[in-house]
Amino acid sequence: MVESWSFLDTAESNFRPLVVIELSKGTKEETIEWFTKRIVDKKANGGAQLLIKPLVTENGVENIYLVGASHLRLLLGAEAVGLVKECSDNSMRTFTYSSRKTFKHYADDNHDFLTMAECQYIIKHELENLRARDEKMIPGYPQAKLYPGKSIVRRLLTSGILVQIFPLHDREELKKLSHSWYGRVKIGYQPLDDIRCYFGETIALYFGFLEYFTFALIPMAVIGIPYYVFAWEDYDKYVMFATFNLLWSTVILEVWKRMCAILTYRWGTLLMKRQFEEPRPGFHGVLGINPVTGREEPMYSSIKRQLRIYLVSLPFVCLCLYFSLYVMMIYFDLEQWALDYHKENESNFSSLMLYVPSIIYAVVIEIMNLIYRYAAEFLTSWENHRLESSYQNHLILKVLVFNFLNCFASLFYIAFVIVDMKLLRQSLATLLITSQILNQFAESLLPYWLQKRYDRRMRKRMCPTKTDMDLSLAEQVNMEKEMGTYLGTFDDYLELFLQFGYVSLFSCVYPLAAVFAVLNNITEIYSDALKMCRVYKRPFAEPTANIGVWQLAFETMSVISVVTNCILIGMSPEVDALFPDSKMDLVLTVALVEHLLLAIKFIMAFVIPDKPRDIQMKLAKLEFESLEALKQQVRAFQMQL
Amino acid sequence: MVESWSFLDTAESNFRPLVVIELSKGTKEETIEWFTKRIVDKKANGGAQLLIKPLVTENGVENIYLVGASHLRLLLGAEAVGLVKECSDNSMRTFTYSSRKTFKHYADDNHDFLTMAECQYIIKHELENLRARDEKMIPGYPQAKLYPGKSIVRRLLTSGILVQIFPLHDREELKKLSHSWYGRVKIGYQPLDDIRCYFGETIALYFGFLEYFTFALIPMAVIGIPYYVFAWEDYDKYVMFATFNLLWSTVILEVWKRMCAILTYRWGTLLMKRQFEEPRPGFHGVLGINPVTGREEPMYSSIKRQLRIYLVSLPFVCLCLYFSLYVMMIYFDLEQWALDYHKENESNFSSLMLYVPSIIYAVVIEIMNLIYRYAAEFLTSWENHRLESSYQNHLILKVLVFNFLNCFASLFYIAFVIVDMKLLRQSLATLLITSQILNQFAESLLPYWLQKRYDRRMRKRMCPTKTDMDLSLAEQVNMEKEMGTYLGTFDDYLELFLQFGYVSLFSCVYPLAAVFAVLNNITEIYSDALKMCRVYKRPFAEPTANIGVWQLAFETMSVISVVTNCILIGMSPEVDALFPDSKMDLVLTVALVEHLLLAIKFIMAFVIPDKPRDIQMKLAKLEFESLEALKQQVRAFQMQL
Repeated sequence: MVESWSFLDTAESNFRPLVVIELSKGTKEETIEWFTKRIVDKKANGGAQLLIKPLVTENGVENIYLVGASHLRLLLGAEAVGLVKECSDNSMRTFTYSSRKTFKHYADDNHDFLTMAECQYIIKHELENLRARDEKMIPGYPQAKLYPGKSIVRRLLTSGILVQIFPLHDREELKKLSHSWYGRVKIGYQPLDDIRCYFGETIALYFGFLEYFTFALIPMAVIGIPYYVFAWEDYDKYVMFATFNLLWSTVILEVWKRMCAILTYRWGTLLMKRQFEEPRPGFHGVLGINPVTGREEPMYSSIKRQLRIYLVSLPFVCLCLYFSLYVMMIYFDLEQWALDYHKENESNFSSLMLYVPSIIYAVVIEIMNLIYRYAAEFLTSWENHRLESSYQNHLILKVLVFNFLNCFASLFYIAFVIVDMKLLRQSLATLLITSQILNQFAESLLPYWLQKRYDRRMRKRMCPTKTDMDLSLAEQVNMEKEMGTYLGTFDDYLELFLQFGYVSLFSCVYPLAAVFAVLNNITEIYSDALKMCRVYKRPFAEPTANIGVWQLAFETMSVISVVTNCILIGMSPEVDALFPDSKMDLVLTVALVEHLLLAIKFIMAFVIPDKPRDIQMKLAKLEFESLEALKQQVRAFQMQL
Repeated sequence: MVESWSFLDTAESNFRPLVVIELSKGTKEETIEWFTKRIVDKKANGGAQLLIKPLVTENGVENIYLVGASHLRLLLGAEAVGLVKECSDNSMRTFTYSSRKTFKHYADDNHDFLTMAECQYIIKHELENLRARDEKMIPGYPQAKLYPGKSIVRRLLTSGILVQIFPLHDREELKKLSHSWYGRVKIGYQPLDDIRCYFGETIALYFGFLEYFTFALIPMAVIGIPYYVFAWEDYDKYVMFATFNLLWSTVILEVWKRMCAILTYRWGTLLMKRQFEEPRPGFHGVLGINPVTGREEPMYSSIKRQLRIYLVSLPFVCLCLYFSLYVMMIYFDLEQWALDYHKENESNFSSLMLYVPSIIYAVVIEIMNLIYRYAAEFLTSWENHRLESSYQNHLILKVLVFNFLNCFASLFYIAFVIVDMKLLRQSLATLLITSQILNQFAESLLPYWLQKRYDRRMRKRMCPTKTDMDLSLAEQVNMEKEMGTYLGTFDDYLELFLQFGYVSLFSCVYPLAAVFAVLNNITEIYSDALKMCRVYKRPFAEPTANIGVWQLAFETMSVISVVTNCILIGMSPEVDALFPDSKMDLVLTVALVEHLLLAIKFIMAFVIPDKPRDIQMKLAKLEFESLEALKQQVRAFQMQL
């Protein structure tokens, strides 16, 4: 079997392993042979034209394969995925093999022209686009059906033959990156360009947003500190803080769009053409002809999907929201009961009992979030979305709405039903701080510690004196394949989103929230960086031009916070005292101010351009050039007449 | 001089005049010679390669020229402007000369493949793109400077040498169109496709919107009638009507986007690539190198423009708004004074005096609108916008804000300051109906009557027995060049926008407004059609994919109307009676309902897709094909390896 690709090794002497493929233990020989043949086969024969080598360890061949590609193959792949790179004249252009000499840092012998993350992305793209031709099934597995055009890798994954595909870490690069990123305590920006080179644009953009958001919160935090230090309780100061906060949050979200455009222009993803999306792996249906592509693929009626969404998912989500509110009411009953108990029998035990309800509630909230997350994933999967992007949008929407209610419902209740600002401030602080500590622990430190322990045990078995750098390839692969899989930026953004909620929804009651958020985010940068570099498998790079649906989520939150803050200010006794004669005037004034603030927000969002002027100019220049090229063609044709 | 283009006449025997160029009376010979030479010259020599003929009348040559083009030239021009036409397989594709055989109705001898409006648009585009090469000035006019790349026609227009360029009517087509459009009273839709063929997409889309909007108002009108007939005054019925109205207006605006996509897909403009915009004729500045195009052209600092906008235009607009409010206050004072006078000395004269203030106010409003319009045009022109689209947006914004306040300020004052619902209803009805009557008169009937009178006089001089069809070309051109110029759809949309305001802003007070709007719009269709066909010069076709900034304007109006209606309902005595104990509860309930309605509106706008599914599929198919074509190229290259 090994012979079948040995000829490739001679063709390219320096095989550089980029991606690891792990097949399940008992995979049949014929399947392996067929799959590897397809991977190395020429493009003309429907192959991926990549290089593959089995990983040989002390225990012999273990169904683990290393995939690489020749330099030329990678350059052609870069053209196929539509990579955008910088030209010698500093403009960004879509890479094509024929124009390769015009690109910056390009040289025929420069194998660093494409970053390792880009190479791995290209290989992933090529593997996923390895499509069945006349095979009716995966050889050796009659139950794993194929049809012309079906992605082989996706079918192998869904039928369990393929355990995982993951890109290899580059120990040396990783060491450099982690040193400049979190290795030393320093004042300064993160090395975003290096992060992007190593982990790809999606992750770099998350860290860019995290950093930007932290800096953006600093003015709020600075203004918030004197409120705590001097224990200011004046109404006008709170109003000023809230007003500043509301307008500031609009400004930072608008300015982020501009920052994001600057970053993604530099990285080339702003200009990258969207690839045509293939159906997601889990999508199923009866075979039919896709009217768009003309290909045979599973089809699923959009009306059925709509029915599932509106008749099952929507009611279920509403029920969950209701249940969450019900649990909250039970919590408040318990709280009341504990208070009564404490009043009746004052003792050490009873004062301890005061904390029990909130502990129970906190635990229940976490459990509910967890169960709901599984339910949401199941439901969204059952809705059978054709595209991964549409699946993600529906999942994010479901999870966002529930998490929002689950986290903030008790605060809303305290603020607007119980109307106890002291309790609100206290609950807000407790919720914010404990959730931050819990998150940091559960998300980074715990996995890091587990990974470390596992590492140490693994290494003891192998050779206890070796450092990371001395590990053989086989040892490295074996260690990395056991690492956890990073499931994407969803949870990280969700955490920031909820934090933004704590900071802005009740900002006029608890100005100190921004201070805690800033402190948390500074450590968050370090712990997230640690998580990415040490805890998880290296993720595949994913090109992206913006933070997608999260922009909308943050903007919605900032609109909601205008409403909540206006109501809170309206309810404060200091404002009440300003309108001694008529409560009506008070309410009307508050409503007027709220509408004014909302109007200003929308006008500001409209007036601030989404892209900085120089990026606009660069984009216009590219557009102009492509239009001119088109005109030239027409003109050349007319000249001939 | 005539000889210089006579060779072209033999090349194409059937010269069809499409566009008329009128030069000023005293234009120098050398200028005419140079200009016509540039028009007929080959593309390779920097000409437009069109055909041109002087118009010979009884009085000799009158500096009026007819422009046409050969069939081949028009097809090449269609490719240059990026026209999208229907293929034989019913898909819409960008026309290219090389793929011409795949298009529906194409035949080498079928000269109707391009509509006359399309041909005229192509000629206009070619004339406007006739650019100076090494000329430093217009020959014969040293003060009319040129620089390489400057549009010759635009310079001729700004220096007054070129009086006007306009497309010729096609008497036969026009007769057919006007017959099917407004010739007979009939129930049914307008012939939108025919209108589009004759007048182009912008005008057809306006009539499409007008028709759609009229149909969309019918449900409101039907529900509104019983309120008048049975004199319902119950609070719950008004609330129901207002709620329906508010949600309905969101639905119709969202559905319009879908209708618009269907229309413009069929017309090909949805797919048409935006052309690179040249500086507008009035734009001036010092010569510099445009960083986008690399061409020499006038440059103007964007910071200077921003300063002019924010430091001059914005304060001026605010001042005008303040002045308009001031005039309104004077009106109310006058009204009060007239009322007092009437009470003191009750007589026929005094009861007549009651009407004087409102008549004066109506006249003053019209005069203010007019003066403001000129001021706005002057200011926007002074802001020196580089692009016509940006000029238009700034002008529309200025005019919209002022007209909104001027028309609705008195109603707002009556509703929320005087709080007199009876007076509000009465003012609303008066304003709506009188403005409709005045508009119809001033906009269509008066110009029609003037035009008719002028026509009759003209024809008496020529030959009194001739009908429209028998007129010679010279007579037709002479008649059309004296007709008024249609200045675009701005005023028509503005009228609809204000009407939408009357219908929706106070819908819970005066449900009958929708009935009047429907009645007005039915006659409006006829009078606007008459105006287009009989009163004005034929306008150049303008491809467009949507109604642009008006969509935003209507959506903003529908958001404002949620606020006004909620306040109005909250103030009604019936609702007041429901909350006898606490005014607070009333206000809070109203605020809650308002926020709910706004949230529902935004969710609806988000959930309803902007394009119908089948259009989405067709667009996806085209995108897929172009991506596949790109991939094929890459693959073909890889195969060679």
